[in-house]
Amino acid sequence: MTDENKKNSIDKVASAAGVSIATVSRFLNGQLDRMSEKTAKRIQNIIDEMNYVPNAAARQLMTKTSKMIAVVVANIEDYFSSEIFKGIDGIAITEGYTPVLFDTNGDEQQELYLIDKINQQNFDALIIQPLNVDANMIKKHLKRNIPVITVDRLLENSEWPTVVSDNYDVTKNVSNYYLSKGYTHAVIVTEPIGTVSTRRDRAAAIKSVYPDASLVEVNAKDNVAKKVKARIFADVDKKEKILIFALKERLVLKLAARFRQDFTNANIKLTGFAESDVLFEINPGLKLVRQNPFKMGVTTGELILSLLNSDEASVPAVTVVKADYL
Amino acid sequence: MTDENKKNSIDKVASAAGVSIATVSRFLNGQLDRMSEKTAKRIQNIIDEMNYVPNAAARQLMTKTSKMIAVVVANIEDYFSSEIFKGIDGIAITEGYTPVLFDTNGDEQQELYLIDKINQQNFDALIIQPLNVDANMIKKHLKRNIPVITVDRLLENSEWPTVVSDNYDVTKNVSNYYLSKGYTHAVIVTEPIGTVSTRRDRAAAIKSVYPDASLVEVNAKDNVAKKVKARIFADVDKKEKILIFALKERLVLKLAARFRQDFTNANIKLTGFAESDVLFEINPGLKLVRQNPFKMGVTTGELILSLLNSDEASVPAVTVVKADYL
Repeated sequence: MTDENKKNSIDKVASAAGVSIATVSRFLNGQLDRMSEKTAKRIQNIIDEMNYVPNAAARQLMTKTSKMIAVVVANIEDYFSSEIFKGIDGIAITEGYTPVLFDTNGDEQQELYLIDKINQQNFDALIIQPLNVDANMIKKHLKRNIPVITVDRLLENSEWPTVVSDNYDVTKNVSNYYLSKGYTHAVIVTEPIGTVSTRRDRAAAIKSVYPDASLVEVNAKDNVAKKVKARIFADVDKKEKILIFALKERLVLKLAARFRQDFTNANIKLTGFAESDVLFEINPGLKLVRQNPFKMGVTTGELILSLLNSDEASVPAVTVVKADYL
Repeated sequence: MTDENKKNSIDKVASAAGVSIATVSRFLNGQLDRMSEKTAKRIQNIIDEMNYVPNAAARQLMTKTSKMIAVVVANIEDYFSSEIFKGIDGIAITEGYTPVLFDTNGDEQQELYLIDKINQQNFDALIIQPLNVDANMIKKHLKRNIPVITVDRLLENSEWPTVVSDNYDVTKNVSNYYLSKGYTHAVIVTEPIGTVSTRRDRAAAIKSVYPDASLVEVNAKDNVAKKVKARIFADVDKKEKILIFALKERLVLKLAARFRQDFTNANIKLTGFAESDVLFEINPGLKLVRQNPFKMGVTTGELILSLLNSDEASVPAVTVVKADYL
């Protein structure tokens, strides 16, 4: 404990202000109706003077606010997650809020563990890119009644507003574009779809245009090009024009790096989702779905400020941030 | 304010425990010598019962600890920064600490702003990848006396332990390797060196082997290959074998993507620093300096736990985590 901290005890505030400890306690609990305005002001002044360093714990007892927003993302390694945070940060800071970042590292249990920790601290709001699928799981751990917004992925049983990319629409539009160009077969390349709503939506959109699309689910260690080639060999007539649609930047990257060596058939076209500039730097000729995680963050930041500023803020249940096809 | 929070007022604890408000205040201030053990226990039990949700602010007043570690990084977009955090996280969590991440977004003023915010909250420790060069600037804003470790970059006038990569040694070794292979001229490609200690160390190490090395400083918008080619054309004899040494992954990436189209002279070799797998996926033939940010994070996490666990922990002033040359 530092000297500054020792000075902050309620006892010392009471004696310096010439009031009882009970009065300081009431002040810290916000029961200002039980003392004169003058007394409240004197206590505040003493606290201000003594708190050469403001004592956040005391102030939080008093105001129940920390001006901090907890932001929980699926993986800080992903450019997508870090851009969402940067978008939130840029907006929240304009009203004096400081967003702080928690990393679930792709682990559902870690997500619940972190929500327990956040619940125990005085965060004013929570923004989460959820891994768990059921909002009730998260509610079980977040017991405090603070504003919550989910981002990127949809939750079941959720009453929280959510900000998402237009995964389904943009994917369907791109699929229709390539069908119109004579690409008659699609190969979907994705991490295991499981219950992840973004992957499910994108795959469904492709299948709405290409009902017979091949599905290649890959893990981190897989040789992606090899798996895709094997599937094309098994599923596709040699004369067909084939669209490879990779649902994540890293997968596009793995396929793009040696595309013409791996896929010598000129009738094969690669497209997919990108978040960063890397793919455009490597292969400026690729046309890719470019999501807008920074803008998603900005939108989320604006909505959370509305909720923080007013109990009756009306925030749409779902806000869609459009992706581009470049 | 939620119902749970309302229940937590000191008044209610006092009346439930049958003691005065002053006694609860003393308890919250840790002045247990002024009450019987039985009374302290009764108050604790009441607080436990009433705090269906533990009230962190009250507990922090009592224990002066939040079990949270603030981690401030230069840019969460950089794989290097996010891996450092993941390394710290993996270790800290084993002793019940939760690291939370703050992003300075490459902005020195933002760094000081965030340190102000951290100073006002009850973080138990601070880990920082600093942008400001002078420790005194940071100390001016971090007034609380908590354990601090700096990581990646060295500070002037610092008494805080630091964990760094062996930038100088590995860069010198790689330079010597290429000199022995007959590469007689080096071109250093870097973001503006300024006062960033890592860039300065790496450039100095190359110049210790190649005193006449060309220096190409580039900004985000520059066409890197074009600038490098112009410099080679101006500085280098056509018969020399040339080593291009890029000091950051993104710069290596920009040069590697179209290397054989951009640099048709077979006597030119590219090397540089890598943090992620991207470059190895794109061009498995490159030999690169592979830093170990995750291990740097683990080391930093271990050192901060030592400092948190003991006031007399002896932690080395500088801990070097070796990079690999692959």
